[in-house]
Amino acid sequence: MHFADRVCAAVSAKDSRVVVGLDPAPDLLPPPLRNGLDERDPAAVCAALLAFNKLVIDRTAEFAVAVKPQLAFYEAYGSQGLAVLEETNRYAHRAGLLVICDGKRGDIGSTAQAYARAFFARRPEDGWGIFADALTVNAYLGTDGLRPFADAAREREKGIFVLVRTTNPSSVELQDLEAGGAPFHEAVAGLVLRLSEGSFGQSGFSCLGAVAGATFPAAGRRLRQLMPKSILLVPGVGAQGGSAADTGVFFTPDGQGALVSASRSIIGAGANAGSLAEAGAAIGREAMLLRDGINEALASRGGKGS
Amino acid sequence: MHFADRVCAAVSAKDSRVVVGLDPAPDLLPPPLRNGLDERDPAAVCAALLAFNKLVIDRTAEFAVAVKPQLAFYEAYGSQGLAVLEETNRYAHRAGLLVICDGKRGDIGSTAQAYARAFFARRPEDGWGIFADALTVNAYLGTDGLRPFADAAREREKGIFVLVRTTNPSSVELQDLEAGGAPFHEAVAGLVLRLSEGSFGQSGFSCLGAVAGATFPAAGRRLRQLMPKSILLVPGVGAQGGSAADTGVFFTPDGQGALVSASRSIIGAGANAGSLAEAGAAIGREAMLLRDGINEALASRGGKGS
Repeated sequence: MHFADRVCAAVSAKDSRVVVGLDPAPDLLPPPLRNGLDERDPAAVCAALLAFNKLVIDRTAEFAVAVKPQLAFYEAYGSQGLAVLEETNRYAHRAGLLVICDGKRGDIGSTAQAYARAFFARRPEDGWGIFADALTVNAYLGTDGLRPFADAAREREKGIFVLVRTTNPSSVELQDLEAGGAPFHEAVAGLVLRLSEGSFGQSGFSCLGAVAGATFPAAGRRLRQLMPKSILLVPGVGAQGGSAADTGVFFTPDGQGALVSASRSIIGAGANAGSLAEAGAAIGREAMLLRDGINEALASRGGKGS
Repeated sequence: MHFADRVCAAVSAKDSRVVVGLDPAPDLLPPPLRNGLDERDPAAVCAALLAFNKLVIDRTAEFAVAVKPQLAFYEAYGSQGLAVLEETNRYAHRAGLLVICDGKRGDIGSTAQAYARAFFARRPEDGWGIFADALTVNAYLGTDGLRPFADAAREREKGIFVLVRTTNPSSVELQDLEAGGAPFHEAVAGLVLRLSEGSFGQSGFSCLGAVAGATFPAAGRRLRQLMPKSILLVPGVGAQGGSAADTGVFFTPDGQGALVSASRSIIGAGANAGSLAEAGAAIGREAMLLRDGINEALASRGGKGS
C-alpha cells in the first residue's frame, strides 16, 4: 500500500498522530538497564539499547503510529549499533508500527541511490539490512539530491520527509534567510511540491513529506498551505519546548496530514524508575498523554480528534 | 596532531593532494571479485567489497593522502556493510592514509553529539566502531548543527568538511539562490568562517574545512577567498566532469589548503581488467595521473607543485 495511505490508515485506526523517537542515549535508560554499563564495552551497551527499545515499543505501540529511530545513536556503536537498529526496526514492524529512519541523508546520483537502497530495499523478512518505511532527507543538494529518494519511495511504497524547517533556535540563520522575497525554507518547500507530482496515494497525500518543527507553529501554518498534499513530520514537542496544544496548525481540517514526534520526553520517562515495569508504565503513559494532547488540540480548533 | 597540520604534512611528504573516494558499488569491482556475486547474499558481497577496498588502498597509498569512504555504499548492506567500513578505515590508517568519512551528516544537540561520537571517538586500536579522521557535514540546521561537530573536532584533533557548494548541476537551485545580495552558499561559507575562530593549527589552517565542487571553479575561487583558513575538499573530478587542470584555483599560493577527490574514475579503472593484479595496476595508475595532473595545474599557475 502507498506509504501515505498506510499513515492515514494507522492514524484512523489508532486515533493517534504520535511518533515515538527512538534516540536511546544511555543516560535515558532505566536504572536496571543503565547501572554498571561501560561505554568501552559496546556489546553490553548494545544489548541494553536493544532491550530498552523493545520495552519502549511494547509499551507505546497502542498509542503511536510510528517509531523514529535516530541513526546517530546507533552509528555511535558502529556495526554493532547498526545491528541494534536492524533488530529494533523489525521488532517495531512486527508490533504494527511504521518505521521512520531519522538519518537526514542527502547526496546525489549513485550515492543517493545507494542510500535509497540501504533504507528502502530491505524487507523485514529478509532478516538482514535496515528495514524502514520512510527516511528523513536533506535537500541542500537540490533536485539531483531528492529525486533518487523520491523515485525509490514511489517504486517501493516508501516515504521520505524532507527537512524544511527544523526545530532548533539557530535554524533561522539559514532557513529564514530571505531569498527571492520569502524565507529560504519556502524554496525548499517549493522543491518538495514540484517533485511531488505523480506521487499521490488514494488518501490524496504524497509519499514526499516534509519536516516542520513544532517550535515554529507560524511557519508550520504556512507550510501546511504551501505543501497541502505532503504529510508533515513535526518534531520538537516535549524536551525541545514545543507544546502539543500548538500542533493543530500542522494538520489538515480532517485531522490528517501530520505526525507529531517526541523522543526524550517519552523514552526518558523511566530514567529514574525503580524497575523495568515501572519505567515501561511511565513511558507508555507519556505516549498516551501526547496522543491525547494532540487530539485535544485538534478538537479545540474544530477539527476531528477523539 | 591538529587535523589540518596532519593534512599539510601528508601533502608535503607525498607531494600529493589526492583523495581516493571509496564508493564500492558492485559494478565497479574487477571481474574476479564481481562475477557470480548475488545481491541477496550480503556476506559474500561484503567480503568482495572489503577485498576490493584493500586492493585500492594497497595500490593508491603512495599517490594519495586520504581515502574518502562514501557511507551510503556501506549502509546499503546494513550492519554487515558497516563492518566493512570499520575494517576498511583501520586498514587505510595502517597504510598511512587519512580517513575522511563522507556521510554528509547534520543534526542538532544530543544527536549531533552522537554523530560526533560515532565518527570521532573511536581509535583504530579499539578494534570496534567507526574510526575516522574527518567527516563531511551538512549545515542546513545552522550553528546548532555545526557547533557540536566543530567542538568535537577541536577536542579530538579531527576535522569536518562542511558542504558549501556541491558538484551537481541542480546545486544551483538552492545553493545559488540570491540571499542578502550573495548566493546562498556564501552564507554557509560565512557560518564556517565564524565557527572557525580558535580552531587553527600550526599550519594556520582550521580543522573546519569546506566542500567545494570542482565543477564550479569560479565559485571555488571565491570560496578560497571567503574561507582563507579552511581546507577545501574538492570532489567532482573525473566521472562528474571536473578536470584536474581546473583545480588550481582551490589552493593557496603555496599549493596547500585543498584536497581533490575522485571516486569512480580511480576505483572503477579495473572494472574490465582480467586479473586483480591488472585491476590494481590500473587503479594505481589513475591515482598517480590525478596526482600529477593537479601538481601540473599548480605549477602552471606559478604556485608550488612537483
